[in-house]
Amino acid sequence: MTPKPVSIEDKFALFSEPWQPKRIGRIDGYDVRIARLKGEFVWHSHADADEFFFVVEGVLRMHFRAKKGQWHEDVPAGSLIIVPKGTEHKPKALTPETKIMLVEKSETVNTGDGAANERTVADPEYI
Amino acid sequence: MTPKPVSIEDKFALFSEPWQPKRIGRIDGYDVRIARLKGEFVWHSHADADEFFFVVEGVLRMHFRAKKGQWHEDVPAGSLIIVPKGTEHKPKALTPETKIMLVEKSETVNTGDGAANERTVADPEYI
Repeated sequence: MTPKPVSIEDKFALFSEPWQPKRIGRIDGYDVRIARLKGEFVWHSHADADEFFFVVEGVLRMHFRAKKGQWHEDVPAGSLIIVPKGTEHKPKALTPETKIMLVEKSETVNTGDGAANERTVADPEYI
Repeated sequence: MTPKPVSIEDKFALFSEPWQPKRIGRIDGYDVRIARLKGEFVWHSHADADEFFFVVEGVLRMHFRAKKGQWHEDVPAGSLIIVPKGTEHKPKALTPETKIMLVEKSETVNTGDGAANERTVADPEYI
């Protein structure tokens, strides 16, 4: 297959629903995904996968929870944050909408390792 | 280690030399790297690693070479291209300077699988 450029903006134009990650590329066994965030997500963690978040537009607030308590980091457009495996986290859009690009193992489920819930997208659409 | 946001712009401010990839993050066994490109690089390929290029600023021209001949794809800022493993390629800055973010296996050498040359950066600095 001949490699082709992929415009992030063009891919975002193909969908509007929040918290529905879409696959836009693959690096070995890793997905490149994009998602629109509105409001906040659910607490979750991935025991076996680091998770890369790059903010394309808006501001992402990443909440963290551990024995020592809760804290958060704000990630503006043009910045990234990598959530280490096993770290409990909850993404939130600090702006009305936040657009992100993710890189993570292809089998990673957006709601983490627990039971599936209504926010779970186990097998994101390839757009 | 507590995850911290990483500003791509702040990281680019730390160096000015072209074709010197810098590590700015790690996802499992993969690096997130950034690099400044000026002029063109050398033909190379990576037998075991797909290579993700996201253009932060400027335009990247990716040249490809295969049995069927040579061709290229132009990748503007905000777009990405993934070079599949085993695909011979040669990046070129189509603008005076092009800034890119890469995701690739941590052991990937910028000049590919052949003998090292004067462009080789075998173990990029972590900034």
